[in-house]
Amino acid sequence: MDWLEKKLQYLEFLWYQYHMKIPVKNERGGPLNRQIYEGLRNDIVKGILPAGTRLLPSRALAEELGVSRNTVLFAYEQLAAEGLVETRTGAGTFVVQTLAAVRSERGSPREGADGMAEHLSAAAQRIVQTSASVTTEWDWRSAPVRYDFRHGEGGDERLSLRVWTRLLARRARSLSTDTLAHPSPAGAPALREELANYLARSRGVVCHPEQIVVTHGSQQVIDICMRLLVDPGDPVVVEEPHYRGYSMCLAASGAKVLRAPVDEQGIMVNVLKDVSRAKIACVTPSHQFPTGAVLSLARRMELLNWASQRGAVILEDDYDGEFRYAGRPIQCLQSLDHSGLVIYAGSASKMMFPSLRIGWAVVPESLVETFRQLRFLTDRISATLEQLAFADFIREGALDRHIRRIRKRQRRRRDALVEAVHRELGSRVELLGTSAGFHALLRLPDLASDRFPLLREACKQRNVGIHSALRHYDKAPAHMELVLGYASLSEENINAGIGRFREALDTIG
Amino acid sequence: MDWLEKKLQYLEFLWYQYHMKIPVKNERGGPLNRQIYEGLRNDIVKGILPAGTRLLPSRALAEELGVSRNTVLFAYEQLAAEGLVETRTGAGTFVVQTLAAVRSERGSPREGADGMAEHLSAAAQRIVQTSASVTTEWDWRSAPVRYDFRHGEGGDERLSLRVWTRLLARRARSLSTDTLAHPSPAGAPALREELANYLARSRGVVCHPEQIVVTHGSQQVIDICMRLLVDPGDPVVVEEPHYRGYSMCLAASGAKVLRAPVDEQGIMVNVLKDVSRAKIACVTPSHQFPTGAVLSLARRMELLNWASQRGAVILEDDYDGEFRYAGRPIQCLQSLDHSGLVIYAGSASKMMFPSLRIGWAVVPESLVETFRQLRFLTDRISATLEQLAFADFIREGALDRHIRRIRKRQRRRRDALVEAVHRELGSRVELLGTSAGFHALLRLPDLASDRFPLLREACKQRNVGIHSALRHYDKAPAHMELVLGYASLSEENINAGIGRFREALDTIG
Repeated sequence: MDWLEKKLQYLEFLWYQYHMKIPVKNERGGPLNRQIYEGLRNDIVKGILPAGTRLLPSRALAEELGVSRNTVLFAYEQLAAEGLVETRTGAGTFVVQTLAAVRSERGSPREGADGMAEHLSAAAQRIVQTSASVTTEWDWRSAPVRYDFRHGEGGDERLSLRVWTRLLARRARSLSTDTLAHPSPAGAPALREELANYLARSRGVVCHPEQIVVTHGSQQVIDICMRLLVDPGDPVVVEEPHYRGYSMCLAASGAKVLRAPVDEQGIMVNVLKDVSRAKIACVTPSHQFPTGAVLSLARRMELLNWASQRGAVILEDDYDGEFRYAGRPIQCLQSLDHSGLVIYAGSASKMMFPSLRIGWAVVPESLVETFRQLRFLTDRISATLEQLAFADFIREGALDRHIRRIRKRQRRRRDALVEAVHRELGSRVELLGTSAGFHALLRLPDLASDRFPLLREACKQRNVGIHSALRHYDKAPAHMELVLGYASLSEENINAGIGRFREALDTIG
Repeated sequence: MDWLEKKLQYLEFLWYQYHMKIPVKNERGGPLNRQIYEGLRNDIVKGILPAGTRLLPSRALAEELGVSRNTVLFAYEQLAAEGLVETRTGAGTFVVQTLAAVRSERGSPREGADGMAEHLSAAAQRIVQTSASVTTEWDWRSAPVRYDFRHGEGGDERLSLRVWTRLLARRARSLSTDTLAHPSPAGAPALREELANYLARSRGVVCHPEQIVVTHGSQQVIDICMRLLVDPGDPVVVEEPHYRGYSMCLAASGAKVLRAPVDEQGIMVNVLKDVSRAKIACVTPSHQFPTGAVLSLARRMELLNWASQRGAVILEDDYDGEFRYAGRPIQCLQSLDHSGLVIYAGSASKMMFPSLRIGWAVVPESLVETFRQLRFLTDRISATLEQLAFADFIREGALDRHIRRIRKRQRRRRDALVEAVHRELGSRVELLGTSAGFHALLRLPDLASDRFPLLREACKQRNVGIHSALRHYDKAPAHMELVLGYASLSEENINAGIGRFREALDTIG
């Protein structure tokens, strides 16, 4: 039989290839039976071995390939489990159907796409409507450029990764199944204890560990807050501009969005006087996103009064509060709040790296039980191993040391950015929000905001990545604003990148 | 000064204790300055060192303790960062306020608890109303007993943990920051690719990797499905009895819950004929939770027809489908569905251990983009390191081997349970749902369901943990039903546990 010979040659080829090139693993036959399985599966799916074809008896194939019969049998079993072949007693193993056939039977799966729109919930429909801004918000599909001033990353991923994997590995070695049992949806008690200490020490947060809920990052805190407090039509205050992650959750909740403008002292609380009712006000006091303004103490007190008079909850998003380079730190809203109205949110994304997925909320005692229940129904718990490793990290003082190291490095990068912008761009621009965090806002008063695509293209040609602040506005500003993230660029690259940026700027006006 | 001497003695004590008992770590002074810091902090918070107290100059304290001045300074700095002490130039370091004072100033934080109820969203209020069942649902606060027939755990946590930490550590070593950058909210492409292969091979799922969304477990799939499809008042079909995780999400969504009874063939689809409209039907075809029934092929086809006529989506929760001990596997609903109406949900909780937090949804192409957006606003992404480690696990065939090993062990435990129940309890009970999974349903036709607390107490005295199926019912059944989880008990303990259970049963009639 022709096909069988071809098949055998193919398998022999795989077999030799396996011995020649791939180091033999000590896992019992794993890769080998996988090679056999994949070779056969591929041919079945492609129709090279059509339905009805009888496979070589396992013993014969095993001899031919010089492998144990079990290895072949295992590959056959896998194909059978997948429904691609079938063993008829006494007759042998036969190809029954192909995945390709199954798929083509059903026609193009895209056909029904529009038909589902009517099935979506009102919340999902609102999300679809804002989907343009959602999918561009974090553009994970864009090709990398060398001098990419993207934001959203922490201080030093390489260092953070080394630290983190060491901690994980060590904790994993000492982990017992007892430690894994009965996890609490609020988070591992050991981590909540350490977070309470750490947040008191580094951010002035006053709380009991019971008020802390460990989450998968601060986005989860935002989403849970909205679900906890907001019904469709309820007024919610956000800063303008604001972090795009809020827009998505606001769309889902159906909130009526009230925008409070931001100046160099942060959110303009006096504008809120006319707002008689709001369920929640979302603010970034330690480093306004994206303008970088630090909310003044006077405004903090004013905001707390405003909220307390209206019974509004304040969501204090302290996304990079640890990284302050100049001036005295101002107490966080949570520590100034005497009415139990502030929900404090933080995460390890900036301290470590964003794909770590550890965040936390400090919730007033009156809300914490319901918050916890919402977290539980959302996705139950966070992974215990990671929580305990992070608790170790804090307990041993390693987090403090890590942050000091990152802060020192970031301060140099911040200085490099400030100098480079001053040197290259001078009075053509304003650079805001450089006293803290990992990004600054570059305002170009002479350039209309709709010229961004042109400037981005000119930058891209020079291997520079720039990111408009436009997407963080509900109402577009007249002039152009860029969010310059400098966390993942060396001082050298910051200098070179700003130089090239100036060249790009020169070409378009 | 009295307090100072006391303080110094205390610190000296800590110092000696440090040298005598605790192995010296190579981390620069970390534990030591932490001891000093904690000793002082503790006394400040407790009021032993009241506000206005001047601390010993750092140089003097360092000499007294025989440590470097930097070590003391670091402790003082930490206290200052926390706002507990303040350094006045030329005058020294003073205690400024105490956390206790700050806390007591605010009165009991519980005071405002009732005041917040009116602030909650309608969804949160519904959740509070169902909170009794929510908080008892997964009782992480109960004391452990030796023979605990609890369910919800996988086959062998010890083995799974060893496997998992080895994978994590290996992947961590080869992880680069590039791999971490730009994660997709749908999950790491490598993992989605492997999951598509695995699910095709082991569960007959027919899908492209683009249809897969990696989540933090199947609870997240349930929650996102409700948010995706259900508005308040919309009809949703659930099995009766059903997994409690649905009730919480249904309460949040405000759905009108339609209960479909279950018999030995699974959900009774003929009852649904009168249901003219439903947004979604939540089913557990491969091993009904908690009765353990396997949905017959005829019913599967009937259910798909029912859904397709009404445009209802089916959520197929395949929570332990890999673990089948008897009979031929039946194709999952997803593989039988030609209309793109089935959302398939699975997780690694049972294969590995519940606090791992990796799950997946296979979503029809018409819904996947919106599903992905909802996942993104919920908590953005899953941790990349863990996703890649799990992808390795599948690619190398290790997951298949692991599952075979667990299945073999579980089959023995299942057999032990069946034998022990037959031997000890005979015709007094019915044991259902033993053909798959990690739990069975024990029906006690002669015992009223309200006698459960009595039986639980009698069991507890014999070190046996039992769990009522009552919480999985919306309408309580007349007779008692227990969910017997046997995944974490050895055969010996299953035998002993059922023996003791019989004794407990005898005492109450």
